[in-house]
Amino acid sequence: MQRGELEPSQALERLVHLPFVDTPHARVDTHRALRSGLPEVVYGPGKTARQIAEVVRVQRGAGLAVLVTRIDAATADAVLREVPGGEYDAPARLLCYADGEAPVRGKGTVLVVSAGTSDLAVAAEAAGVARHYGNPVETLHDVGIAGIHRLLASSEQLRKARVLIVVAGMEGALPSVVGGMVDKPVIAVPTSVGYGASFGGVAALLGMLTSCASNVCVVNIDNGFGAAHVATLINRL
Amino acid sequence: MQRGELEPSQALERLVHLPFVDTPHARVDTHRALRSGLPEVVYGPGKTARQIAEVVRVQRGAGLAVLVTRIDAATADAVLREVPGGEYDAPARLLCYADGEAPVRGKGTVLVVSAGTSDLAVAAEAAGVARHYGNPVETLHDVGIAGIHRLLASSEQLRKARVLIVVAGMEGALPSVVGGMVDKPVIAVPTSVGYGASFGGVAALLGMLTSCASNVCVVNIDNGFGAAHVATLINRL
Amino acid sequence: MQRGELEPSQALERLVHLPFVDTPHARVDTHRALRSGLPEVVYGPGKTARQIAEVVRVQRGAGLAVLVTRIDAATADAVLREVPGGEYDAPARLLCYADGEAPVRGKGTVLVVSAGTSDLAVAAEAAGVARHYGNPVETLHDVGIAGIHRLLASSEQLRKARVLIVVAGMEGALPSVVGGMVDKPVIAVPTSVGYGASFGGVAALLGMLTSCASNVCVVNIDNGFGAAHVATLINRL
Amino acid sequence: MQRGELEPSQALERLVHLPFVDTPHARVDTHRALRSGLPEVVYGPGKTARQIAEVVRVQRGAGLAVLVTRIDAATADAVLREVPGGEYDAPARLLCYADGEAPVRGKGTVLVVSAGTSDLAVAAEAAGVARHYGNPVETLHDVGIAGIHRLLASSEQLRKARVLIVVAGMEGALPSVVGGMVDKPVIAVPTSVGYGASFGGVAALLGMLTSCASNVCVVNIDNGFGAAHVATLINRL
Amino acid sequence: MQRGELEPSQALERLVHLPFVDTPHARVDTHRALRSGLPEVVYGPGKTARQIAEVVRVQRGAGLAVLVTRIDAATADAVLREVPGGEYDAPARLLCYADGEAPVRGKGTVLVVSAGTSDLAVAAEAAGVARHYGNPVETLHDVGIAGIHRLLASSEQLRKARVLIVVAGMEGALPSVVGGMVDKPVIAVPTSVGYGASFGGVAALLGMLTSCASNVCVVNIDNGFGAAHVATLINRL
Amino acid sequence: MQRGELEPSQALERLVHLPFVDTPHARVDTHRALRSGLPEVVYGPGKTARQIAEVVRVQRGAGLAVLVTRIDAATADAVLREVPGGEYDAPARLLCYADGEAPVRGKGTVLVVSAGTSDLAVAAEAAGVARHYGNPVETLHDVGIAGIHRLLASSEQLRKARVLIVVAGMEGALPSVVGGMVDKPVIAVPTSVGYGASFGGVAALLGMLTSCASNVCVVNIDNGFGAAHVATLINRL
Amino acid sequence: MQRGELEPSQALERLVHLPFVDTPHARVDTHRALRSGLPEVVYGPGKTARQIAEVVRVQRGAGLAVLVTRIDAATADAVLREVPGGEYDAPARLLCYADGEAPVRGKGTVLVVSAGTSDLAVAAEAAGVARHYGNPVETLHDVGIAGIHRLLASSEQLRKARVLIVVAGMEGALPSVVGGMVDKPVIAVPTSVGYGASFGGVAALLGMLTSCASNVCVVNIDNGFGAAHVATLINRL
Amino acid sequence: MQRGELEPSQALERLVHLPFVDTPHARVDTHRALRSGLPEVVYGPGKTARQIAEVVRVQRGAGLAVLVTRIDAATADAVLREVPGGEYDAPARLLCYADGEAPVRGKGTVLVVSAGTSDLAVAAEAAGVARHYGNPVETLHDVGIAGIHRLLASSEQLRKARVLIVVAGMEGALPSVVGGMVDKPVIAVPTSVGYGASFGGVAALLGMLTSCASNVCVVNIDNGFGAAHVATLINRL
Repeated sequence: MQRGELEPSQALERLVHLPFVDTPHARVDTHRALRSGLPEVVYGPGKTARQIAEVVRVQRGAGLAVLVTRIDAATADAVLREVPGGEYDAPARLLCYADGEAPVRGKGTVLVVSAGTSDLAVAAEAAGVARHYGNPVETLHDVGIAGIHRLLASSEQLRKARVLIVVAGMEGALPSVVGGMVDKPVIAVPTSVGYGASFGGVAALLGMLTSCASNVCVVNIDNGFGAAHVATLINRL
Repeated sequence: MQRGELEPSQALERLVHLPFVDTPHARVDTHRALRSGLPEVVYGPGKTARQIAEVVRVQRGAGLAVLVTRIDAATADAVLREVPGGEYDAPARLLCYADGEAPVRGKGTVLVVSAGTSDLAVAAEAAGVARHYGNPVETLHDVGIAGIHRLLASSEQLRKARVLIVVAGMEGALPSVVGGMVDKPVIAVPTSVGYGASFGGVAALLGMLTSCASNVCVVNIDNGFGAAHVATLINRL
Repeated sequence: MQRGELEPSQALERLVHLPFVDTPHARVDTHRALRSGLPEVVYGPGKTARQIAEVVRVQRGAGLAVLVTRIDAATADAVLREVPGGEYDAPARLLCYADGEAPVRGKGTVLVVSAGTSDLAVAAEAAGVARHYGNPVETLHDVGIAGIHRLLASSEQLRKARVLIVVAGMEGALPSVVGGMVDKPVIAVPTSVGYGASFGGVAALLGMLTSCASNVCVVNIDNGFGAAHVATLINRL
Repeated sequence: MQRGELEPSQALERLVHLPFVDTPHARVDTHRALRSGLPEVVYGPGKTARQIAEVVRVQRGAGLAVLVTRIDAATADAVLREVPGGEYDAPARLLCYADGEAPVRGKGTVLVVSAGTSDLAVAAEAAGVARHYGNPVETLHDVGIAGIHRLLASSEQLRKARVLIVVAGMEGALPSVVGGMVDKPVIAVPTSVGYGASFGGVAALLGMLTSCASNVCVVNIDNGFGAAHVATLINRL
Repeated sequence: MQRGELEPSQALERLVHLPFVDTPHARVDTHRALRSGLPEVVYGPGKTARQIAEVVRVQRGAGLAVLVTRIDAATADAVLREVPGGEYDAPARLLCYADGEAPVRGKGTVLVVSAGTSDLAVAAEAAGVARHYGNPVETLHDVGIAGIHRLLASSEQLRKARVLIVVAGMEGALPSVVGGMVDKPVIAVPTSVGYGASFGGVAALLGMLTSCASNVCVVNIDNGFGAAHVATLINRL
Repeated sequence: MQRGELEPSQALERLVHLPFVDTPHARVDTHRALRSGLPEVVYGPGKTARQIAEVVRVQRGAGLAVLVTRIDAATADAVLREVPGGEYDAPARLLCYADGEAPVRGKGTVLVVSAGTSDLAVAAEAAGVARHYGNPVETLHDVGIAGIHRLLASSEQLRKARVLIVVAGMEGALPSVVGGMVDKPVIAVPTSVGYGASFGGVAALLGMLTSCASNVCVVNIDNGFGAAHVATLINRL
Repeated sequence: MQRGELEPSQALERLVHLPFVDTPHARVDTHRALRSGLPEVVYGPGKTARQIAEVVRVQRGAGLAVLVTRIDAATADAVLREVPGGEYDAPARLLCYADGEAPVRGKGTVLVVSAGTSDLAVAAEAAGVARHYGNPVETLHDVGIAGIHRLLASSEQLRKARVLIVVAGMEGALPSVVGGMVDKPVIAVPTSVGYGASFGGVAALLGMLTSCASNVCVVNIDNGFGAAHVATLINRL
Repeated sequence: MQRGELEPSQALERLVHLPFVDTPHARVDTHRALRSGLPEVVYGPGKTARQIAEVVRVQRGAGLAVLVTRIDAATADAVLREVPGGEYDAPARLLCYADGEAPVRGKGTVLVVSAGTSDLAVAAEAAGVARHYGNPVETLHDVGIAGIHRLLASSEQLRKARVLIVVAGMEGALPSVVGGMVDKPVIAVPTSVGYGASFGGVAALLGMLTSCASNVCVVNIDNGFGAAHVATLINRL
């Protein structure tokens, strides 16, 4: 029997001294970049251009890259007027500030597959973030399962990817089919696309969680960012 | 402008004289066989062997075929002891009373496709009822979408069917894939197979309702009987 | 025991060579028209007039008919300005491009029945698509079950139809009543009409799925298009 | 402007002196019989025969009638052994103790209508309680809407009732049809009969709440007792 | 055993000849007024002023009263410009057309009780419709159960009513308390008032359906009209 | 055995004489201030500036403090123009009328902890109300559990509080962690922040209700006011 | 701006040295008793008598009290045979091991109020735990709101309590009424008592979360233990 | 623009010749082992010992390893009697057949972390499968977030893992805390442990899907197997 209080864990000691910065509205975790090896990310919705600009300025002041997600064109413009030097990716609704291209640290290709044209925005977010995080990224769009030959024709591409992100709304079955065709981890992203019994993405979410393909794991509805984050960590292994 | 009360609809006049039989517990619709061209069906669960036997006896007394669904082996035995002459199909949980084979009236093949071995009971019910209703029936089992080549290898068989019944639990995506491979109506049956986020068939049901294949329509969870009924009516057209 | 790898399925071989067209945003399934015998359909919501026009132009360029669903008048106008020659059906929210009338290939009448005046838009979509797909179409509106004599007065018309589409919101019980009056397949369409416990069509959807009439199958909430698609395939048998 | 504290409401004064009896496990509301004009009712499930017998004994000791609902045959037997003199109604699962027949105080007929044979238990509870409460009761069973002529044939009986209780599971549409045929209040009782998308009575419940017939009000799933209670109060007006 | 086809039900014969009027968009049930003894009601939402005016004109042309529910002030104005002679009740969102006051046919008082000031709109609808339907109506507002003395002070008024409509949002408990204080039928109306876990009236709806007071029955969320309709039928008994 | 009617409870007698004021739209509970020891609170949403001003005027006329919650800046301005003398707290959306500072009656510190910057509005409401109610209040923001060292660094502050209010959206896990670090009551407030599977605060609500820390109790989604109310009562003990 | 890494928080240092004990199946938090001032609690369901006995033995070996919740009589017997010296409270399903009576540390009375006889088990758990934790406890049973005079008659007792736990199933409205009668914190416990639309306690849970009384906070369904835990912490303030 | 029909994809050609074996009840995918590099897995529930033994025998006959999941001791015994040579892991409910130890192919450690003792069964399944699949596996149990120091004390172990599986019921917040402490992918497994508002694992599932830690992805409730499968594929990269 081992007594916990007898081992003064070095990790915990270190934890005491982890850095953060108290601002009027936030306790910014400046250690996160070190800890996760990834730049700070700001979730755009519900924040004013001013609030976003403030965070961006702090990060840039510290010489750090920063990424704003789900930001519409108008807000991005306003932020860029306050803090120039960023780049806006409209379909992905991403605003990126960085010093040059992200160095490629991903060891293989992250392939972003999407089912229908309405899933493109979420797929673009996933692809954009994955690129910003230093992954070689490929995309394969509009290969929904009701015309399965379109997907089959790209099976080589599927098999060459190191990590796959599969984006689908409606019944969300694409990850199951893709999962059965590859021996790599598949990160499934349900989208809120659809109407009626799709219940804002719930049908797709449940379909992905109950996938008969065992190499599928799932992130939140429309969470292209999270999928790219997980894919990045996997791709750096 | 047409005034409804001025047209003494002959159909309605006839409706007044439609036959039924009042028994102690039921107002039996003896006209249904004529109306739908299909034998009486008794839904087994919640009924005692005695109650079932009573209905069977009445129908047989009138020289009519009768079909009991979702009846377990023990109850079927008890019914058969009271009213001999029926045949029990164990995997399909069907007890059939008829005078010889059902005459084939379906014009083509009803193909029953199922995703996993756990969907076999519902698929068997669908196939059994369809046969009892006079359809040529074929089955194709264990062709879940996570091993898509198994389904593709049978695509000729899929295309030759006149009506398709597709049975699947879990994410319920098989009807979408099948639907994309044929130009015939597909009747999707979600099953309650699964655990966790399958919620007793809800995941499969939602997946089928939001199918990206437009030739898919849906019946209730585990309702193999209903699927066969609809398929039969279509196959007689 | 049959070994799958020994039968080089011809169907699969053919599948390899199925046509599609890669555009910047979509992998267009140009084979679908052949496969399903039905023209391409574009789901309008979430697409700009420009995006819709682009797809329409491609299809028209290939000499194919195309149908846009759930498109409002303003967007339809914009599309028509970019690609003239289409026809807009306002109540049905359909924009159709075709070379003359669709040839009638349906063998009987598709009857579209609806419960209340608020269900008219969905019923119009179903009827419009069915017509566009080459079916003789009849409609019967405002025959909700709380004034059952209105429905009964049309029972002849019900019985003459080859396939029935029944559209209803609220408790969604009309398909059950109609289903009991005919011996043909009934495709039920729940609508999102209602408030409170109708939960955007869920009450109607559940009611239709649990219908006590066995000849009823169901499509997604408000999915008049899907109902017409299924009805068309049935009516061509 | 009226000041509440200036009016020493006589009703409230009386409320202070309302009778109840504190027992070890309950604060029995002996005034309820006076207040509601109806005998005490004990909800059986979750109570032992001993607990039920104890309450029955107290009521009988005070010369009052008492009714136990949802009590199975075995428990009823055990209670009757401890407190003789009651009568058990097996299909309705009711155990009644009273001094002779309940005096008829209802001014018209309470008609209990039910859809399928599986709804009989709930309908029997409603009918049994209504009788015990002094109403002339009629019943009409097995008139589900998928064979509408069975219901139409009894439309005179429907119209003669003063209050109607309509019991249905599955899609729960019978109250809407009945409601459209009469000008009397209809109390709808959803039952938990069904499977899959009936969700233990939820489909029927939602269907009844969203009924297109405006003279329908609803009680809890399987609550035959509550329906009879409300019907009784209405029928005494 | 009685054979249904042997009794040519007179009621059914009459049903054949029930009147209705086919208009371009509706099969108007002109018999409803006779059948239910109540004027036609038009549910406003989703209809244009033009559509509403058209129905109103038809009814008025036939010398019938008509009531439009849930109609906002602007639409009501527009309707009144097209068909003068109606009266708009703003808090109740009712537009009434009638020839003079409705003759009082209700035998006692319909009392409309509401819990909070936010429930006033639904309560006003209930009270307005009940008055329009010929009932003496009283109201008691703002007597939520968290200040129970306000309700107790009016217990005489509660007890004098012949039928009670109780309107409440949030936890929807007021009908239970009122139900325990009277021996009359209580019609409970859940409102969509509230936020968070009230889920648009679901909390109140469930609370009312599971009320521990047995004289409570329930109508749909916000359905003040339906409550008044049921109350009217009861009050005419 | 004790007979209730024999004890003329003094409390009940007093209840009869509790004060309230009937206004056109409300039965104002003027006794509440005495009863709860806390000023009247007006829930802003759904009320016009005029309606709010009316209530405020009545309270101020009686020399009482009053607090309006969830009132936006525009409405607050309008109310202040009609009834000057109040103070608007924009982030907390509170409008307070009082005679000077609230006397401090809370015996210790109420600490308001929040997880992310998007939870600030609800946290501000909680803190603002707690201050208005006479509590010393401290706040600790942006200490979400994905950067646990930020929370750990403030553990002394957590432990010094007498009552804690913990506000979190998304998975709502912060109260569990905080609850494990203190031996004081923790009032958890789920917020509607989040998207997809957060379902408007349901994920956070369920997380808090099933917390593995036993000293956590929960109020409604976004209900910062309620949390402050409960915390105040606790802090006065 | 304050830099977190500059303040070597003493609290955190201490956290490093907090004690726990690693056993084969658990990392037992032996510091919890110190931290929360309350004995270890074992949640019974899903554990064998052997597993429970093992934990109990460890705690007793360390001279600590321990409480097992939701343990049935048979399991309790088995545990007592392995580790004698405990006391079993059958209605509360609690097994307590302690050295003599718990010293009274609560400063006032914890009053446990329950609505119906079916809520007694949960109320007994709450009362039993509160007593075991050193609180003076009173109980008030069977005071459901449909017979409000029973509750009113005890209003003095309600007002004298320092903390109130209110237990109710069905519509769960009792906490709202009690909350309006006292100026103390009310901890509401929904129970899973009920059927149909009570959905295993969901109706009561929602009702309590949306209570119109602001001094109500809520714990999980049937969580009598949690309510007593929170009440104890409050009562020690 | 690239024409799909012009590229006779070699991958697709190969797909035509993928092997499977048709047995009476299943179309066994013998290619899966090659495709996924992992042995066949049989999901136990709903299958008889005979059915399981049959599949095992086939696989063993082909010299392949096979793993049966969620199999209870009695069934495992029966299978072992029919097909000796397997090994049963009781806590993990796994039955494994293999030729010696699985060769280690995982490149780092898979760490399985679980929150409470009730989550052990799911954690054991995850760990057992991961070992069977050739991963070095470590476990860390009983480190729920309400005693956060237990988790902190193992932060070194957390950081050394290459992939983490985090298992939790109740509020399911452990993955968020762990996710914030590491820069590796975290696979979260919600368990059905809990009662009331945990809704059989839904609370935990939603909590994990909405995690504020971006390196968390989720599998189905209780799906320890799926988590191990995904972790294995990641660990082989």
